[in-house]
Amino acid sequence: MPDSGASEYDPILRAHSNREIRIALIGTGTIGLSFAAYHLSHLLSPSQLTIYDTRPNLDKYIEENLPKFFDEEPAHAALSSIRIATSLEQAVEEAHIIQESGPENLDFKKQLWAEVEKYAPEHSLFWSSTSGIPASQQAMDLKDKSRLLIVHPYNPPHIMPLLELVPSPITSEEVIRRTQEFWINRGRVPVHIKKETTGFVANRLAFALLREAVHLVNEGVVSVGELDSIVESSMGPRWAVAGPFKSYHAGGGPAGLEGFFKNIGGTVQGCWSDAGKPNVGDGWEKDIFKQAQDTYGSVDIGERDRITRRVLDVLKEEKGSSTQHTED
Amino acid sequence: MPDSGASEYDPILRAHSNREIRIALIGTGTIGLSFAAYHLSHLLSPSQLTIYDTRPNLDKYIEENLPKFFDEEPAHAALSSIRIATSLEQAVEEAHIIQESGPENLDFKKQLWAEVEKYAPEHSLFWSSTSGIPASQQAMDLKDKSRLLIVHPYNPPHIMPLLELVPSPITSEEVIRRTQEFWINRGRVPVHIKKETTGFVANRLAFALLREAVHLVNEGVVSVGELDSIVESSMGPRWAVAGPFKSYHAGGGPAGLEGFFKNIGGTVQGCWSDAGKPNVGDGWEKDIFKQAQDTYGSVDIGERDRITRRVLDVLKEEKGSSTQHTED
Repeated sequence: MPDSGASEYDPILRAHSNREIRIALIGTGTIGLSFAAYHLSHLLSPSQLTIYDTRPNLDKYIEENLPKFFDEEPAHAALSSIRIATSLEQAVEEAHIIQESGPENLDFKKQLWAEVEKYAPEHSLFWSSTSGIPASQQAMDLKDKSRLLIVHPYNPPHIMPLLELVPSPITSEEVIRRTQEFWINRGRVPVHIKKETTGFVANRLAFALLREAVHLVNEGVVSVGELDSIVESSMGPRWAVAGPFKSYHAGGGPAGLEGFFKNIGGTVQGCWSDAGKPNVGDGWEKDIFKQAQDTYGSVDIGERDRITRRVLDVLKEEKGSSTQHTED
Repeated sequence: MPDSGASEYDPILRAHSNREIRIALIGTGTIGLSFAAYHLSHLLSPSQLTIYDTRPNLDKYIEENLPKFFDEEPAHAALSSIRIATSLEQAVEEAHIIQESGPENLDFKKQLWAEVEKYAPEHSLFWSSTSGIPASQQAMDLKDKSRLLIVHPYNPPHIMPLLELVPSPITSEEVIRRTQEFWINRGRVPVHIKKETTGFVANRLAFALLREAVHLVNEGVVSVGELDSIVESSMGPRWAVAGPFKSYHAGGGPAGLEGFFKNIGGTVQGCWSDAGKPNVGDGWEKDIFKQAQDTYGSVDIGERDRITRRVLDVLKEEKGSSTQHTED
């Protein structure tokens, strides 16, 4: 029962109502299940959510694993009302949004989208959770390449507010806009990444810091645990409240970011010039992996997520939607 | 009235009591006043705090400017009980801790410490707030070079928990240990930086991310405001809870950090290889400074600090002293 009329995808635009929107999730790894938990908490009825995977005994797997993504155990009735599709066609034929979190494999994704396109309603949105395979490549075998968009979460997506929206050059403005509105209406932070950059933006930033962290630990300046302590007691909480540009703009006094660079641009450049350039496979791994294991063993992710929620609640209460700087 | 016996600096070791410790602050810029506000909130009596600066009308200046560093207006009696020294000798002669936050100028600091040494009690600690001038250089004109230690805060020090303790190779273990105990007893996070590295650790990490941030904005991938939104809604809150190594160790599943690099080491290296290398003065400044000004104008620092306190309160309540990974 494919649909095509504008009235059918209007619910995405008026997403606050949640009344009619239907979401199909493909892939049930950690990211897929986390998105499932998120959507379940934001839909009027679990029957609006369809899940598909080629995994055997999918319904039993979901029943066992999905509850881990909830703070409080969801009602059995809610879980059992999720639609478990037995074929891709059944999964997508009535969906307004088709969101894939499958294997990070270009051939898989290309084939998947071509297949999805056969059965999905004409105006449905195609979202990929990939952290690295650009929309322009995934869309190669699509007839309508304008409807595919990367919607890359920051793990775990049922908790973290960020969604990186990374279109290909062919993705339509309307697809980007409808996707932004979907997430903004749910209090999330969708950011439109203007170019298909390797690793997008969040990971590039985080990995830039990680590289210097690896360098400093490798040089014996601090240990793995000390480095984490430093971040947790300084830029972590600071950047939760005000990102790096805003922080340094504030730090520059009345002259703002320009004043900041006037005052300590020399120190900044000194650090940049002296920065380490370790690469993956350079040999630093053995000691640093061991330090991480010795320091943390098995991390209690439940505790981490619970504390993260509390921090995010404070930020949401204080900042509301003012963390948004979407300029589209 | 210089003191010299062990009984005189014991209060530093038993710092929880606060009963007898006397602190002399030299320099009353933003950092100096912020430390003054911090100490005032943690001493039994404001008379244990001495402030010295060559600034004219120092008492009036402090009366006018110090209250800005408090959440609630401090009692006038408290402010007026701070000892304002009229000479360096008077400032330091009875102090257990002498903490300088003066100009970032090596000659100034070298001369200051040589002068301080003439008058200060034998076992008093010499702390510098510098963000860049190593202890080994500052100590050049000291007779006893073992007592000087960098105690570098993360701005603003009356709020942020981190203190980077950066000794010179000659700084004594005892000076480092006494300084650590002082801060740990006050619930702060002093981290011993093992080498005199350019920019120490926190700024090197933050500036590494800032460099990639400048690159991505300069390339038009996102705007200044969007980049801040990304950080505020992803790694900021995440790293407030668990630093980068701990986060990625958790992200690697049972195999920890090793598992993380096994899974996405290729993506990490891809980002590292593709990272930008802008330098200060390269010409990106004009547009980025303008974007910061247009986006933020004048930042409400009071609001930023209030929200930061709330976030830190949650973290302290949840994590207690478990954020400490001091291994000395």
